[in-house]
Amino acid sequence: MRAGRLSAVHVTVGYHEDFLGVVQNLQVWNRWFEECGDVIARAVTCDEIRAANAAGKTAILFGLQNPLAIGADIGRVEILAQLGIRFCQITYNQQSLLGAGCFEPHDSGLTPFGREVVNEMNRVGMVIDLSHAGHQTAMDVVAYSSRPVTVTHANPDAWHPAPRNLHHDLLQALAERGGMVGFSLYPHHLRGGSDCSLADFAEMALEMMQSYRAGMFGIGSDLCQDQPDSVVNWMRNGHWRKHPAPPVAFPDCPSWFGDNRDFPGLAPGLEAAGMTGAEVAGLLGGNWMRFWQEAFVKP
Amino acid sequence: MRAGRLSAVHVTVGYHEDFLGVVQNLQVWNRWFEECGDVIARAVTCDEIRAANAAGKTAILFGLQNPLAIGADIGRVEILAQLGIRFCQITYNQQSLLGAGCFEPHDSGLTPFGREVVNEMNRVGMVIDLSHAGHQTAMDVVAYSSRPVTVTHANPDAWHPAPRNLHHDLLQALAERGGMVGFSLYPHHLRGGSDCSLADFAEMALEMMQSYRAGMFGIGSDLCQDQPDSVVNWMRNGHWRKHPAPPVAFPDCPSWFGDNRDFPGLAPGLEAAGMTGAEVAGLLGGNWMRFWQEAFVKP
Repeated sequence: MRAGRLSAVHVTVGYHEDFLGVVQNLQVWNRWFEECGDVIARAVTCDEIRAANAAGKTAILFGLQNPLAIGADIGRVEILAQLGIRFCQITYNQQSLLGAGCFEPHDSGLTPFGREVVNEMNRVGMVIDLSHAGHQTAMDVVAYSSRPVTVTHANPDAWHPAPRNLHHDLLQALAERGGMVGFSLYPHHLRGGSDCSLADFAEMALEMMQSYRAGMFGIGSDLCQDQPDSVVNWMRNGHWRKHPAPPVAFPDCPSWFGDNRDFPGLAPGLEAAGMTGAEVAGLLGGNWMRFWQEAFVKP
Repeated sequence: MRAGRLSAVHVTVGYHEDFLGVVQNLQVWNRWFEECGDVIARAVTCDEIRAANAAGKTAILFGLQNPLAIGADIGRVEILAQLGIRFCQITYNQQSLLGAGCFEPHDSGLTPFGREVVNEMNRVGMVIDLSHAGHQTAMDVVAYSSRPVTVTHANPDAWHPAPRNLHHDLLQALAERGGMVGFSLYPHHLRGGSDCSLADFAEMALEMMQSYRAGMFGIGSDLCQDQPDSVVNWMRNGHWRKHPAPPVAFPDCPSWFGDNRDFPGLAPGLEAAGMTGAEVAGLLGGNWMRFWQEAFVKP
């Protein structure tokens, strides 16, 4: 991350873990902050991100890809925020107590409990993340939330049709309501998969910035650097299937984005597609920082 | 319970509790079995029910009204069975990871994870309880489950329209698939509420036995004897609402069913409606015992 000059990274501290599982993941990070405090620092505010960067460190922000740790207890939202969780998805692929995932056959939309959780996330300044949500659920959340919401890691499905990518209606609604989208660099979300070129990705990004609102886009790399394949199988199966799906491997990264060290190489590719220097700076971090400046405070 | 000559009682050990909350409730019961072992006994098989009865004790069977304790972990189904849980609902009023509750505005039906849990409950011999489920979810479960399923406590909505009561289609499907229904004595499920007469209840019961299958009905009293009103508010709100609904009190019991001691008084009322002695005996316990004899063993 330091070699890639990353200012801040949103890390996942829960896929299928319950509350105590998330706490255990946080304990692992606490140990890393203690042992690697020269290069990473925990951050829950933009000031803390800037302070980390001034000290030559990458700021680490915690996010949950699954609301399972909330259980059915509205009070857990603030507890998780107090533990430093800055982002939380409405669901992860399947049905949650809040709504439906993008692989669920029937999308119930945002539930009454989901509305309670959205209210509370709005209150405590936890960023709502619609990645992995079903379309109806996502549309309901954008319409219901009193604060702007995000899709931290996905691409438009008009560019690459995939259940994880985003329909025009959702992008439009996010644009109208001050939302943010992080373009994903995960091969399954890219046109052509691992063979997607930087030029194709950059053209798509520029087109989206022109079609919706340039300042609403950033990067949400979905990078799983140095993770063993057991992690992608945990993501897919958790413990919810009696007979897990046949094991899969992480897909090969695109040649131009193999790991964190390749982040600086994105800039010339984006400029080559026709973005201004200011647009590239926004896409590679400035837009997220501006969004977080509003999002990370209580209203 | 002894004064009412009850052979077996299905008690609730979880409404909105997570796994550890359920374990705590079981600890309370363990203490009671130790302290009151002269009148109650824990049972997980019909043989244990008969042994308890032979010793002059009421058998206690554990049930969950909410699958929350399963979390998103399929392995928890067998663990809960090993802790003695004999019944588990698909959901309690709201959306669960398995399906939708009867008060949920959109019913997603049985989810893929719900099918996994149904399979596992079938395997370990845990009785599936569709009380408090949404209609579509309930219909999906009856069609999907390889073993007969139950609604432990509800009445037909043709007799008393209420979201908690049962549509003809569901009663028909349960009849066709060997299911069981426990008639509820809870005032909100009775025509006329607290003022419902035993004659009206008995006529409804006889009509249902004639319309569907006499042997598929029993009693599921939903009795909350000596419970403080805090319990009904816990049932309604759990911790899922930031601002709980205004406090309510338990409704008054019907005059003819004030508590467990009134069970023996049901028999003459049922006979007066025209049931045979054998039908009354089946309704007041025999039908459940016959169902459990099949249900409480692994297939």
